[in-house]
Amino acid sequence: MKFFNVKTVRETLAIIDEQFRVFAEPLLLPLHEALGMVLAEDVTSAEQVPPFARSAVDGYAVQAKDTYGATDALPAFLDITGRIEMGKGADILLGEGEAQYIPTGGMLPSGADGIVMIEHVEEVGQLLNVFRQIAPGENVIRAGDDVQIGDVVLRKGHRLRPQDLGVLAAIGHNAARVFPRPVVGILSTGDEVVPPDKAELAPGEVRDINSIAIGAAAQQAGAEVIYGGIVHDDYAAFLQRARALLERVDFLLLSGGSSVGTRDFSVQILEALGEPGVLVHGVSTKPGKPTIIARAEQKPVIGLPGHPASAMIIFQLFAVPILERLSGMTNDARDLRLDAKISRNIASAVGRSDYIRVKLEEREDGLWAVPVFGKSGLISTLVESDGMVEIAANKEGILAGENVKVQLFS
Amino acid sequence: MKFFNVKTVRETLAIIDEQFRVFAEPLLLPLHEALGMVLAEDVTSAEQVPPFARSAVDGYAVQAKDTYGATDALPAFLDITGRIEMGKGADILLGEGEAQYIPTGGMLPSGADGIVMIEHVEEVGQLLNVFRQIAPGENVIRAGDDVQIGDVVLRKGHRLRPQDLGVLAAIGHNAARVFPRPVVGILSTGDEVVPPDKAELAPGEVRDINSIAIGAAAQQAGAEVIYGGIVHDDYAAFLQRARALLERVDFLLLSGGSSVGTRDFSVQILEALGEPGVLVHGVSTKPGKPTIIARAEQKPVIGLPGHPASAMIIFQLFAVPILERLSGMTNDARDLRLDAKISRNIASAVGRSDYIRVKLEEREDGLWAVPVFGKSGLISTLVESDGMVEIAANKEGILAGENVKVQLFS
Repeated sequence: MKFFNVKTVRETLAIIDEQFRVFAEPLLLPLHEALGMVLAEDVTSAEQVPPFARSAVDGYAVQAKDTYGATDALPAFLDITGRIEMGKGADILLGEGEAQYIPTGGMLPSGADGIVMIEHVEEVGQLLNVFRQIAPGENVIRAGDDVQIGDVVLRKGHRLRPQDLGVLAAIGHNAARVFPRPVVGILSTGDEVVPPDKAELAPGEVRDINSIAIGAAAQQAGAEVIYGGIVHDDYAAFLQRARALLERVDFLLLSGGSSVGTRDFSVQILEALGEPGVLVHGVSTKPGKPTIIARAEQKPVIGLPGHPASAMIIFQLFAVPILERLSGMTNDARDLRLDAKISRNIASAVGRSDYIRVKLEEREDGLWAVPVFGKSGLISTLVESDGMVEIAANKEGILAGENVKVQLFS
Repeated sequence: MKFFNVKTVRETLAIIDEQFRVFAEPLLLPLHEALGMVLAEDVTSAEQVPPFARSAVDGYAVQAKDTYGATDALPAFLDITGRIEMGKGADILLGEGEAQYIPTGGMLPSGADGIVMIEHVEEVGQLLNVFRQIAPGENVIRAGDDVQIGDVVLRKGHRLRPQDLGVLAAIGHNAARVFPRPVVGILSTGDEVVPPDKAELAPGEVRDINSIAIGAAAQQAGAEVIYGGIVHDDYAAFLQRARALLERVDFLLLSGGSSVGTRDFSVQILEALGEPGVLVHGVSTKPGKPTIIARAEQKPVIGLPGHPASAMIIFQLFAVPILERLSGMTNDARDLRLDAKISRNIASAVGRSDYIRVKLEEREDGLWAVPVFGKSGLISTLVESDGMVEIAANKEGILAGENVKVQLFS
């Protein structure tokens, strides 16, 4: 028999950090399927981007020194010896006193070292009047200005955004080696819980809200979801269903059971699923105290509180960091906390982290976080909320007008 | 022949607002596939949530008046007449002087009007000692506390988040009537553009970056993407390919062609695709001035600038609002702009909206936006950027330390 003290939020996050990491084998995905996936290796460029010196404007490639001193009153005169075409090589060497037409993105001919914009010249037959002087390199994007050979363009553990996929395309990749999406299994528990679509509820029955809400939150965090359905409070059946689901997934979420009896039940199941078993039994938060976190071999298992709003908050607090580790993320996730002012006083107990659901309001003097109150079982309060504000464990509360950080729900 | 003045960003957004709206037929999707979809109808609850009065704690259901005056020294004595089971009806009427055990979430028996927490009682055989008085309604979640019959729980035009799906499950829905994801087609143009996986680039050729980067940005904004490949600067072939792709999609994006010649080309194609044709030809922004926005019957068509970084910024500015309208969104999208301070002076021209790519840094004194400079063709600067800051058209620039709003890229 193990004994557990209630952990703080920081202690719990430290345990998550220490216990869980990616264990899936990387796979190669085409770029157009790789958005949001996490790189499984550093990516080094084998070529330079752009591959050749290009023009940044429509104009004429020249030798800069041929334009020195040119003005509207006293233009420089150059011979037009060619036109660069898009997507073609620049075959004609550019000599002293010569100019060649070049479109934006066109390849700079050998011998040229700058480009005069079309606005600053006049074509007169084969002769070019240049009315403005340019410096060497002007309006030229040099080969390798964007990426050099050997540059590490993206690091292992980075979650791929649209612009990252663009860079991979730029250096000639059409696929990326990434970690697969973690697969999350959700099992709802409780003798009172019935599927959402049951037409007529019998007395005492409630619909399964958490499978849908938590499943969607897991999808949003980049996971695939397997819905395990509802299991009643029968130890043998519950354990068998949990074991079977755990086999098929990387991360098991048990949701439900707010009564003391059901919670005790969940602890036994989590202990029985595999070594080392329960790591955290109770967290000093409100809501969400009855949270249980376990590990069965390499797989995380969480027992979420039964109240839907508590379950969502605990999911954000602890399941999202676990999912990030299972996804292979190693760089800091961009912390999407918004600065706001809290609209009223809120009391809190020292020694406990309180999470207050808030609605954001853009006012004249900036962003305000307006607390949305309601018993933690009320899912409708979550619909009105945009995110949550933490009152740290060492604080007795926050005062109206105080600055707070709002962690967005979605 | 139409004539166009360059439009401001506000004028362009007003045109988008006026010209484009959802035209797809709604469909019914199971809740577990409806995350991020937009509701096509108001949702009214046909039942109350919770469906019956429930206990918020583990304890004993009682008549509150039987506990009045009870203290540790002078407990109230009640007869235990039953135990409520989870998921079962509360069949035994609770009379005066009686108590029934009730778990968290259990159904309140008729006759009872409050619950004494388990911590404040002692069971002695069939007798209950109650050491604390309660008020009527204490620890009870009443039927309909969360949702009443006839409540509009969600409105048409709302994008479904996890908690919204939870509410739909709570009121007995297992599907939602939503608008389908808009289908976006992307066609890259330019004689110099070749597929990303071409092994050896010939002189003057560059890889197609925009299809991948813009396609992923469209996915991120909730669209399905059809990649139309690359078309060269041949009017007949280009028009035929654009027409064929437009047939299959709701929104066509043409990407590429930075030279004056290619841009003129795009305008002709956009005029030829359908009535009313080009609506905006040139926007007073930097980067992104050569943006073209057209409508072919009900479908939007955008000609994006060829430089990858400009294309991404214009996509965020104009294509995302168009996608929101095609998705059926009518409520305000939560504006994910972060407050930050800009780290250095930046000059700008009055009459033009400048968009500066920035990296965010969390410092002691708050969030700072550090400009990432680079020629607009450089995709690698986008990889370093977290978002962009607008310098409004009526400003000559911003000063180091000034407060700015950062629009995140992802």
